[in-house]
Amino acid sequence: MCAMRQFSITRLEASAGETVRAYLSSVNNDFPIPLTQKVDLAEYAAKVLSRGIALAIYDGREIVGLAAGYVNDAIGLSAYLSVLSVSKEHRGRGLGSALVRAFEREAVSSGMERLMLNTHESNVAACSLYEGMGYKTDGARDEIGNLEYSKRLVWLTPDKPNILLSSAGRRTYLVDWLRDALGGIGEVHASNSDSSGAALVAADKGVVSPLIYSDEYIPFMLDYCSRERIGAVVPLFDVDIPVLAAHRAEFEAIGCFPVVAPDDFAKSCSDKLATSKLLAAAGIPCPETYVGAQGFLDAVECGETSFPAFIKPRWGMGSIGLAEASNEKELDVLCGIVERKVRKSYLRYESSSDAPSRGVVVQPRLDATEYGMDVYCDLSGRYRGCAVRKKVAMRAGETDIAEVVDADPRFERLARTIARLSRHPGCMDVDIFDVDGELMVLEMNARFGGGYPFSHAAGVDMPRALVSWLRGEECDPDALTVKWPGTYMKDMAIVKSGN
Amino acid sequence: MCAMRQFSITRLEASAGETVRAYLSSVNNDFPIPLTQKVDLAEYAAKVLSRGIALAIYDGREIVGLAAGYVNDAIGLSAYLSVLSVSKEHRGRGLGSALVRAFEREAVSSGMERLMLNTHESNVAACSLYEGMGYKTDGARDEIGNLEYSKRLVWLTPDKPNILLSSAGRRTYLVDWLRDALGGIGEVHASNSDSSGAALVAADKGVVSPLIYSDEYIPFMLDYCSRERIGAVVPLFDVDIPVLAAHRAEFEAIGCFPVVAPDDFAKSCSDKLATSKLLAAAGIPCPETYVGAQGFLDAVECGETSFPAFIKPRWGMGSIGLAEASNEKELDVLCGIVERKVRKSYLRYESSSDAPSRGVVVQPRLDATEYGMDVYCDLSGRYRGCAVRKKVAMRAGETDIAEVVDADPRFERLARTIARLSRHPGCMDVDIFDVDGELMVLEMNARFGGGYPFSHAAGVDMPRALVSWLRGEECDPDALTVKWPGTYMKDMAIVKSGN
Repeated sequence: MCAMRQFSITRLEASAGETVRAYLSSVNNDFPIPLTQKVDLAEYAAKVLSRGIALAIYDGREIVGLAAGYVNDAIGLSAYLSVLSVSKEHRGRGLGSALVRAFEREAVSSGMERLMLNTHESNVAACSLYEGMGYKTDGARDEIGNLEYSKRLVWLTPDKPNILLSSAGRRTYLVDWLRDALGGIGEVHASNSDSSGAALVAADKGVVSPLIYSDEYIPFMLDYCSRERIGAVVPLFDVDIPVLAAHRAEFEAIGCFPVVAPDDFAKSCSDKLATSKLLAAAGIPCPETYVGAQGFLDAVECGETSFPAFIKPRWGMGSIGLAEASNEKELDVLCGIVERKVRKSYLRYESSSDAPSRGVVVQPRLDATEYGMDVYCDLSGRYRGCAVRKKVAMRAGETDIAEVVDADPRFERLARTIARLSRHPGCMDVDIFDVDGELMVLEMNARFGGGYPFSHAAGVDMPRALVSWLRGEECDPDALTVKWPGTYMKDMAIVKSGN
Repeated sequence: MCAMRQFSITRLEASAGETVRAYLSSVNNDFPIPLTQKVDLAEYAAKVLSRGIALAIYDGREIVGLAAGYVNDAIGLSAYLSVLSVSKEHRGRGLGSALVRAFEREAVSSGMERLMLNTHESNVAACSLYEGMGYKTDGARDEIGNLEYSKRLVWLTPDKPNILLSSAGRRTYLVDWLRDALGGIGEVHASNSDSSGAALVAADKGVVSPLIYSDEYIPFMLDYCSRERIGAVVPLFDVDIPVLAAHRAEFEAIGCFPVVAPDDFAKSCSDKLATSKLLAAAGIPCPETYVGAQGFLDAVECGETSFPAFIKPRWGMGSIGLAEASNEKELDVLCGIVERKVRKSYLRYESSSDAPSRGVVVQPRLDATEYGMDVYCDLSGRYRGCAVRKKVAMRAGETDIAEVVDADPRFERLARTIARLSRHPGCMDVDIFDVDGELMVLEMNARFGGGYPFSHAAGVDMPRALVSWLRGEECDPDALTVKWPGTYMKDMAIVKSGN
């Protein structure tokens, strides 16, 4: 939050050889293995400026940061970042990651699809910077202790131009918006484990998949993505997310980016108890969450909480109606009924591994204004924006009328904190209670939520941003901005089912 | 259900004077006061054929029914039916009402807006026929005991071309469909007691009305309908219907047709206990309905019913989630919670007059296939068609996915029975359980229901039929036919709110 001088990144001319050499010489000893042990600085500068590119950040007339390398691998389409350096006194301002991102963009615009680089295992700051930006290493060191990092920059390619919405259900609007974003290059596919999903019909191609929990699900999806040239899969259903997240590497290996949060985070989101623990550990306020009637009653006993209480299924979506108890007897009965519902419903797949009486959580009722917030992150999980909706009317646990508001700084701060915690790519839907000015997080779902269409109607275009990123391009900053705050409501139409 | 010979109605030529005279002479003594006591038959026949019209039904070459009168009141726009007669041996086949309807159509196509007639108070069959067709009398007799009947044939006129959807809420689709039906002649207005209804924006003119229960509601609506040249008001919300129905005469007096069921029926629909009594009295199967937990427990005691039980608010819309009890303890707690909800919600306006513990009804859970059925009636409450939807998926008590099926004869029979019971004009939404082949009626709502859009998607066009009738025209028989049976689902879009 400190004031930072603006910086800009300049691509150096071929004539800048001496400037580059002088800068590298000045930072030579900052590297774990000085550059001069590996190359002649003048020769390197001349070569990289003639055959590659060098990007510099100036402070006045002096270079304070440099990224240099090659973007001309016409066969392998792999760019190579041979040098990244930021002068010691300018570190901690984000110059390094800005240089890498600029180099990535140059690589993509030169037709590269991947970026590779080496860094010494002892250079912890560099390793952490690269890993935070989505670079991966197999951990193998070369003879002098260098790790090789690489990152796929482009997922939607001429070979894999299509996007798959999995568990697409009825979300025809996302089919439409993604199709608009693709602009005629690439198709939108949709999958669903039953054939009734309207999105199957709206999509360029719809497919009925095995049940998410079936052993055949992941093999089916991998096969489909290969066969149908899918460059990214975007799950729209909570149950789907941790399943895909657990198989991220297999999708990436076939050139398909799964737009899902990291495994652990995805799992936590689907469990209200784990969510509350995760939030509490991160210092984010959330309602006290107790397991079963007894958990709540014990907390009442020791003065930690009080009636009325809300009973919710621990796993799976929101609350299932009417479950507010004003006393012990009601709590007892309602916990029993919710438990029974949970066991009967599809949620049983998730909670069956746990003791039956632990499938229900209880939270105190809070008098609060309810908000929904989208947190938008790019493919490496970097925070890029948010949209805030005040819930005006609910229906079946979904927002029916919402006021899209300008995010006040409290929401923006919370969104950034959540993004650091989640590192999710794409859209995340967060349920928030404003309790006397304190923002409490109730639930997080790392996907396009039921509230996203309100943000979209108010001017956000996350599908467009997502397509830009998947193509290795920077997104239009306008795409993640609420342009027309105001009250919006759901409207209904009837469409022929896929059956 | 007996086989009937087809008959057709012929408009007689001016040269048919002797034919008419001969027929009238043959039925002269069937009238309570023989015609010859009032007119010379030859003179009357000549006059009505030259200045008026005569419609006849033939059996072979012999006239068996006649309707004759005048449709030339260019100032008052009132047609006059001077003679209606059906030969004794052809009565009970609907020839009389068919002749009246044909005469009404001739009157409308000649620019008339009302039809008047006189019939003797002792002619009970005729009085009942006219009243069943919507004719009204002030009960005053002339010197020879004749009652004067009249009926407005045309509600949407050049002076009153507009339709008002009241309590229009979010039903933008009905705004659109009615606008299509009006075909550019007349506007669709929408009212709602809060400004958030999307229909207010979609309508040609939207207005925020006082609360339905406020004393200002009816005066406001009457004033609005006069001022805005509203020829018909179509309420879309259960609470609105009995309120408008109780003031039918005032709306009709200002030339505005309220598309609402008769007062008593409308009241019964809003009360689940009254509904079940009404249905039982009419011999229509329905679930046993008990008042409060004790009512159900008493019935369990005497072996009349058994758990599991469903708890529902007695007044107002459907069930409110989760309220299924499997034993006495759960029943007790859930009744208490629903009671509290009912008292807190807007429903309290309806149940406040009753003892508090009577706001909840309990029904046994039935294992059934659920259907929704529309029953379509014309302005005089005559059955005109139905559409049947098998509910495939529900969401918040509303049908989300439905299969529109060809109505089997059981449904068609039930629809006719209900129409005879209700005498409602327009659309009625009926919830039906198919329990082992027996159709049970759960709920009736005499309005366009949440399921109507499914019927519309499958080819029904009730708004078009309604506009035809309100213009005094016959509706396209095609308009009330399911043309494309199949599975349909709700799709969602976001629209800017009226706020």
